[in-house]
Amino acid sequence: MNFPSRLIEEAVTEISRLPGIGKKTALRLTLHLLKQHESVATSLSQAILDLRLKTSYCRVCHNISDSEVCATCSNPKRDRSIICVVEDIPDVLAIENTSQYNGLYHILGGVISPMQGRGPEDIKISSLMERVDHPLDQDLVKEIILALPATMEGDTTSFYIGRKLEAKGIKVTTIARGIPVGGELEFTDEVTLGRSIISRTNYSMQ
Amino acid sequence: MNFPSRLIEEAVTEISRLPGIGKKTALRLTLHLLKQHESVATSLSQAILDLRLKTSYCRVCHNISDSEVCATCSNPKRDRSIICVVEDIPDVLAIENTSQYNGLYHILGGVISPMQGRGPEDIKISSLMERVDHPLDQDLVKEIILALPATMEGDTTSFYIGRKLEAKGIKVTTIARGIPVGGELEFTDEVTLGRSIISRTNYSMQ
Repeated sequence: MNFPSRLIEEAVTEISRLPGIGKKTALRLTLHLLKQHESVATSLSQAILDLRLKTSYCRVCHNISDSEVCATCSNPKRDRSIICVVEDIPDVLAIENTSQYNGLYHILGGVISPMQGRGPEDIKISSLMERVDHPLDQDLVKEIILALPATMEGDTTSFYIGRKLEAKGIKVTTIARGIPVGGELEFTDEVTLGRSIISRTNYSMQ
Repeated sequence: MNFPSRLIEEAVTEISRLPGIGKKTALRLTLHLLKQHESVATSLSQAILDLRLKTSYCRVCHNISDSEVCATCSNPKRDRSIICVVEDIPDVLAIENTSQYNGLYHILGGVISPMQGRGPEDIKISSLMERVDHPLDQDLVKEIILALPATMEGDTTSFYIGRKLEAKGIKVTTIARGIPVGGELEFTDEVTLGRSIISRTNYSMQ
């Protein structure tokens, strides 16, 4: 594509580096920005800059945070005896949106993946063990929920962490896997259906 | 959605202001930017800022330009006797990509639209007349191609400009409308098919 201006070309190139945005979409966004009031572009530009340069991570759970300890970790209303271990930040947002969980989190920042050369020491496992051994405010950690992806890498990571925690005598649970709500049995894959039979629970009339 | 950090929330809000980008996509882009090297965010931010604050418009054709007169208007290899009138900047890019046109352009910056309260004086029609009367470098303008959208507004604008130009004795043409290349007759709407019969051309064996 021939651009009439070097500035447009640069904006298109930079915007199309974002995942899922091609050159055509980038051009559409660029021309949109050109037509808007100056403040739209300046505040977008500033938000992106601040995002990358000013965000820090909670030293306890490794979530993004505006302060040294994040709002969840420092909230006295959250149950400090339970920690939910997740792969990354979007998982925390997803669980928070269910309003079914009131404990703390621990963000690994990835899962063990030999294919990608990522071992246990490359993700935040040692700091999880540290939290269990020396909990915040001297509250005892009673349960660790493993909420990792249902993939080979996720299972490997769950297994690795589970073994380490069981050695410390802590209750380790994992989120339920089975037929999704609204799911039809005939369209569910065999592995999920098989697991849902093995992990059957007592029927509750509530 | 509850965000763990105000900075993330701001970035998501700003990014989701762009057309076609919702909150979920904005969050995905935000988390992507967080994981990239600092330079990705800084150069994106800078490109957006420069785009809006530094671009200027060609004083002849009103296209975006890095200089007072754009590269097309100042290119001695372009045919100065022919001007293609378009609605907006993407149209120029589209025509340039065909490699079928070597003349100059004139960007109206919109079409006449009484519905949106946009009259002939709100778009760059008077500067087009000025170009015809006092052409750049004393080259005579011999032909004006109207390449406006095939909508009611586009047709109104073509009619308005066409009448003004014919009064000056200049040849006015419009881009051909008909069956698109690869188009099937049975799936073409009646208006297009009707027009393509009225505007039939001599069959060329080339």
